[in-house]
Amino acid sequence: MATLRGKLLVAQSGGPTAVFNNSACGVIQEALKHEDVFDEIYGAANGIMGVLHEHIIDMRKESPQTIAAMRRTPASSLGTCRRKLDERDLERILDVCQAHNIRYFLYNGGNDSMDTAHKVHNMATESGYEMRVLGIPKTVDNDLVETDHCPGFGSAARLVALATRDVGRDTESGALTTTPINIMEIMGRDAGWLTGAAAIGRQDERDAPHLIYLPELPFTIDRFLEDVQKVYDRLGFVVIALSEGIRDPKGNLLMKSSSVDAFGHTQLGGVGSFLVQVVMEKLGIKARSNIAGTIQRSLIALASPVDREEAYLVGQMGVKYALEGNSGSMVSLVRESDDPYSCTTGLASLEKVANFAKEVPRELINEEGNFVTEAFLKYVTPLVGEMPPSYPRFEKQSVGQLLDPYQH
Amino acid sequence: MATLRGKLLVAQSGGPTAVFNNSACGVIQEALKHEDVFDEIYGAANGIMGVLHEHIIDMRKESPQTIAAMRRTPASSLGTCRRKLDERDLERILDVCQAHNIRYFLYNGGNDSMDTAHKVHNMATESGYEMRVLGIPKTVDNDLVETDHCPGFGSAARLVALATRDVGRDTESGALTTTPINIMEIMGRDAGWLTGAAAIGRQDERDAPHLIYLPELPFTIDRFLEDVQKVYDRLGFVVIALSEGIRDPKGNLLMKSSSVDAFGHTQLGGVGSFLVQVVMEKLGIKARSNIAGTIQRSLIALASPVDREEAYLVGQMGVKYALEGNSGSMVSLVRESDDPYSCTTGLASLEKVANFAKEVPRELINEEGNFVTEAFLKYVTPLVGEMPPSYPRFEKQSVGQLLDPYQH
Repeated sequence: MATLRGKLLVAQSGGPTAVFNNSACGVIQEALKHEDVFDEIYGAANGIMGVLHEHIIDMRKESPQTIAAMRRTPASSLGTCRRKLDERDLERILDVCQAHNIRYFLYNGGNDSMDTAHKVHNMATESGYEMRVLGIPKTVDNDLVETDHCPGFGSAARLVALATRDVGRDTESGALTTTPINIMEIMGRDAGWLTGAAAIGRQDERDAPHLIYLPELPFTIDRFLEDVQKVYDRLGFVVIALSEGIRDPKGNLLMKSSSVDAFGHTQLGGVGSFLVQVVMEKLGIKARSNIAGTIQRSLIALASPVDREEAYLVGQMGVKYALEGNSGSMVSLVRESDDPYSCTTGLASLEKVANFAKEVPRELINEEGNFVTEAFLKYVTPLVGEMPPSYPRFEKQSVGQLLDPYQH
Repeated sequence: MATLRGKLLVAQSGGPTAVFNNSACGVIQEALKHEDVFDEIYGAANGIMGVLHEHIIDMRKESPQTIAAMRRTPASSLGTCRRKLDERDLERILDVCQAHNIRYFLYNGGNDSMDTAHKVHNMATESGYEMRVLGIPKTVDNDLVETDHCPGFGSAARLVALATRDVGRDTESGALTTTPINIMEIMGRDAGWLTGAAAIGRQDERDAPHLIYLPELPFTIDRFLEDVQKVYDRLGFVVIALSEGIRDPKGNLLMKSSSVDAFGHTQLGGVGSFLVQVVMEKLGIKARSNIAGTIQRSLIALASPVDREEAYLVGQMGVKYALEGNSGSMVSLVRESDDPYSCTTGLASLEKVANFAKEVPRELINEEGNFVTEAFLKYVTPLVGEMPPSYPRFEKQSVGQLLDPYQH
């Protein structure tokens, strides 16, 4: 096969992650090794928007130190976007790529971004323009198909697991006289992978979370209140990991449907603060919610070391696969072993990836629909890296009571 | 001075912190060194509630490993409470202490807890029962007077600073086509120390936060919207650190007042989600909020090493000061130097501490009332420990445009 000389362009799209820049760094550092192939290394500012508007950055003019520091810098330093492409956009992208002699097109993102990459690949193929298009996976939602998991997920999962565990201890500490119920509202509108990850590191029945609700199963307030009351009666406190995307049995987002129907309130906060209100009104128990929001996907101080390496790897391998002549594919992660965890890369057809979403399968959720299974945890646990050791509890041996009970 | 033999009791009260257990551990490990003085070492379950109801734990029966592991365990493993004492409670406390021959009473908490300790001290003194009462400071709000700062604050401040910095990069990454405004709702209903700490590690004008609103100054929506628009026009995105306790010019919590007056909505979320709605309606710019809630005060993986040491130290010194014959005092932190940071302990009268709160002084807030000063940052920065290095940005040298502008 004759070498295809030309320029390489990398772009990022969709919601950032803590390790998103690692993938861009993997692409750029690998590309820098191949001066004989890549005439230039370009980055698009703000994803496909930068291509459409020719906001294109010369990555060889960036200092190697800055490029290397991207491995410890969260989010996307190139900038990202959300944009659904139409026919006219696709023609423009072709025009821009041809004008600049871009022959390698690496697009880094989630489902929508793989749709973009797929369309760009098809457009180039149909018009006879030789350009190798590779998708580089990324999403904290972990919902791309044809890959074991997605870079970005492990780091968000680590934060969610650590935060839920510690909020559990916080809630337990003050349960007697303050707020015994805490709802953790977790990202992932359509898939519950991140919400389920809250249970990583749970060791015994007092450890948080005690209940988990994913968007994959219909959510009813009555069942939820029953579940909460039952845990409360047993432990005296309850920590709930709740997906922001839970839906009622009709498939409507709870946040929307209930904000009008159930209480007549206009809902400004998320579903977590709505359910806090429901718990307090219906069960008469004090509750609060935490909405870590974009902290979940950006806090690099708690990034998973495994995830960081893999985010770099998929970028690096994207360049290598393109050099080998591949196009129309996404770099996938292929798990080889759970224990010890090991993972390599492969290729998945963009056609099979674009516009599909991997939900949590029913068999990874418990029968009652309010927790994840051991198999779920076996799958997600290696992705977050080593967890700090679990916390002990005091045995609390009573010294005995010398006085009459206090009734006041 | 003759040695006062008897039992020592330690209890914790108020909102937990990530390093709260460090203080209990400091008390217990120091007390274990003095078998000649302390007949027993007791812990009260759930603060003063455990004293009132004689839920008292024998700490010598806990394994040394469990006690040592409290240094890496968040929140309060003894349990904590909120309870305002009345006269009858005080009599009961005296009865319980006398019945068990408790002669050393170490109470660990914030303002309300120091009020409890003060009352217990007075009650013991007035009734002629010899008992040494020491307050051990704790609060993420950092609002105790007569101490340079409070254990628990540095760790919460570290999380707030890191999260705000990274949310800044996340917001900047996607600002062009997604959500360019992010409001970080931060704990501290009456004092803005923790909210102001969001600016630790900020290096240039693009770094988050861009605006800071503390509860110490009146907040008006019009001024806020003006400030936000101005930053948005300059940078294209805005990250705001906002205290949960901001108040309107009449002194009412914004969350309450505005949820009825301004838009007629019933407010279920916090003030952050309310202001998101205001920004979207009035400025027409997409906004979201993050409410880290109790994650702020519990996440021990990001605890400040300085704070962890000091939390232990104040517990340990409480025992030492009590052994020296002190009573009716709180252990205080006394800063000796900013750079290099060094700090020792002292004693403050509980009378001067109880029921006072240290607000952020006006001169540590900028003239416009929307940011903190350099002096504020000089004060808080050493408390969070070393920050990870700041993140670079790409220089983004354009490769130039070869085509006509794209208008679609």
